[in-house]
Amino acid sequence: MSRESVKEIFHTTGAEALFITDPHNMWYISGFRGGEGMVYISPAHQVVITDSRYTEAASRESDFEVIEENSAHKRPDILKELLRADHATIVGYEDKFMRCFEFSRLQNKLTGVQQWMPLDEQIDEIRQVKNEKELALIAKAEAIGDEAFSEVLKVMKAGMTEMEVAAELEYQMKIHGGQRLSFDTIIASGQHSSMPHAVPTTKKLENGDFVTMDFGCVYEGYCSDMTRTVVIGKADEDQKKLYQTVLKAQQAALDGIHAGMTGRECDALARDVISAAGHGDHFGHALGHGVGLYIHESPRLSPNDSTVIRENMVESVEPGIYIPGKYGVRIEDLVVVKEDGVLDLSHSPKELIEL
Amino acid sequence: MSRESVKEIFHTTGAEALFITDPHNMWYISGFRGGEGMVYISPAHQVVITDSRYTEAASRESDFEVIEENSAHKRPDILKELLRADHATIVGYEDKFMRCFEFSRLQNKLTGVQQWMPLDEQIDEIRQVKNEKELALIAKAEAIGDEAFSEVLKVMKAGMTEMEVAAELEYQMKIHGGQRLSFDTIIASGQHSSMPHAVPTTKKLENGDFVTMDFGCVYEGYCSDMTRTVVIGKADEDQKKLYQTVLKAQQAALDGIHAGMTGRECDALARDVISAAGHGDHFGHALGHGVGLYIHESPRLSPNDSTVIRENMVESVEPGIYIPGKYGVRIEDLVVVKEDGVLDLSHSPKELIEL
Repeated sequence: MSRESVKEIFHTTGAEALFITDPHNMWYISGFRGGEGMVYISPAHQVVITDSRYTEAASRESDFEVIEENSAHKRPDILKELLRADHATIVGYEDKFMRCFEFSRLQNKLTGVQQWMPLDEQIDEIRQVKNEKELALIAKAEAIGDEAFSEVLKVMKAGMTEMEVAAELEYQMKIHGGQRLSFDTIIASGQHSSMPHAVPTTKKLENGDFVTMDFGCVYEGYCSDMTRTVVIGKADEDQKKLYQTVLKAQQAALDGIHAGMTGRECDALARDVISAAGHGDHFGHALGHGVGLYIHESPRLSPNDSTVIRENMVESVEPGIYIPGKYGVRIEDLVVVKEDGVLDLSHSPKELIEL
Repeated sequence: MSRESVKEIFHTTGAEALFITDPHNMWYISGFRGGEGMVYISPAHQVVITDSRYTEAASRESDFEVIEENSAHKRPDILKELLRADHATIVGYEDKFMRCFEFSRLQNKLTGVQQWMPLDEQIDEIRQVKNEKELALIAKAEAIGDEAFSEVLKVMKAGMTEMEVAAELEYQMKIHGGQRLSFDTIIASGQHSSMPHAVPTTKKLENGDFVTMDFGCVYEGYCSDMTRTVVIGKADEDQKKLYQTVLKAQQAALDGIHAGMTGRECDALARDVISAAGHGDHFGHALGHGVGLYIHESPRLSPNDSTVIRENMVESVEPGIYIPGKYGVRIEDLVVVKEDGVLDLSHSPKELIEL
């Protein structure tokens, strides 16, 4: 997919070969979806190394050379031959993904390697900017979420449990083409909604409850992510006010974000609105995160991230206010960063819904 | 849960402290479910180290001391203090779980450690034999699978897609209390059933199709696992014969397995039946695997595993025959190993079901 970006890594780091073992990176770089094995890349070689269960699929999915690993031709031996052919002694690897066990096995066998170069961040970075095909898949995944949300609104009512709502949402995502969940669905009603990462329980929805629903699916490998908060029955004035504050904060971010800003600047757009409303202490997480093959990717829209966002990065925009012991509201869209603004991939309604 | 087993590790390996970072092992050993942080154990100290998001939950869930890690008191500093207090210089760690990045950070900071001891297997082993509480949770998870299967049989028919069957099964597991899937559901109909790990597609079920359903959920952390193969419409004679061969192979294993056998011996009970029927080349995977907090645990019931199984280990028993390009059958129960046999946790019918 992004061979140029990989070449760039060789230029900027001095690595002479890369070992890729993160299944998402293997897929991204080679097209091979099986996830088992390793991708080897050098300026001269592009290879998928995998076992007999996957060699046929790898040949179909990837235009890389496919080499079978087995008990007679083990992975370290294959790598040794490739490194020798490439005269490569500086090897880049994903230090945040590679396990100690695997690494020490490689270190022991590949004694010709003079430098092991941790390149996790550089390799992850090549996935940040999405191409048109990726954007279409993410938009499709998000559209599945929109459809599921619209279906679940038809059946949600007081007396249903949080787990039943989760079951319905997940069923609808699957029926509409979602291949799996992109993360564990969050359904948080009443007091539970004050916890950003609440797990669905057997608590029943009650009249007057805020219900926060944070959910997503995977379509052809790419993740969706969306949050909506609704009210069961009628919202009181405090709830309306809180909801409008979060909505206003999100709108400020959606209106203001564009390529060239830092994650910190994006985050501040929403955080300033929430702080001005007196809830600065009640927004304990970042405004957003990158989304792609992983549900959480870099860069983040966070007070702690000074990365400059670029056109065609995909980011969640999800301000929230959580009042301990009482309730909370979060509203989240998924957007594509553009030169002059954002393209919002989430089309579910955002005016306060009372069910 | 199993403090005695941890003490045993100190005795047998010579490690003076253990660093535990696998969330399942952290939960198992300390009771802390948050998964973020680290568990430190020595003969004198039992500590959960985690950040402010989880300290309250950790104190509630675990009887270990809880130490908060933050920017003023980082994890390596906390560990340094604990190691010093314990006069510990030999540290055991989970080498198959720990990432290179984390490990090199610890190695750089904890210069007083004289030996880093890879103990992944020893630590995993303490989870192999389940206690009564764990067995009850696994039985409950498996019962949820039984209920979901019985519900899905009521709606399955020609014309439904594999993904719709998956959606229904997953919905039913959730409605009956399954907190999440223990693995991606496999629904493989017709020719797809010849692939042991087929992914559900938009293919419609057709009359005469074998449909293999392999599914499971998580209940209070513990996994279930079950496979059934049914026929849409009427089975022909070849299908009946193949199904009976697999069923006979499974029954031979269920009748023969007991504590004290090796994984290899267990596997042979079913494999011999399948080979005698001329399908030795069509059973390409192992008979079973351990199940617990992870869906795949040690030991395996495999020609390659000589581990002796013990009372109260939980194993899947899942022979299959896969005829390339044609179809396949797999039948899987989850069992508790007992001194004189097995306790079958799966209660779904196994006579050939024609829908």
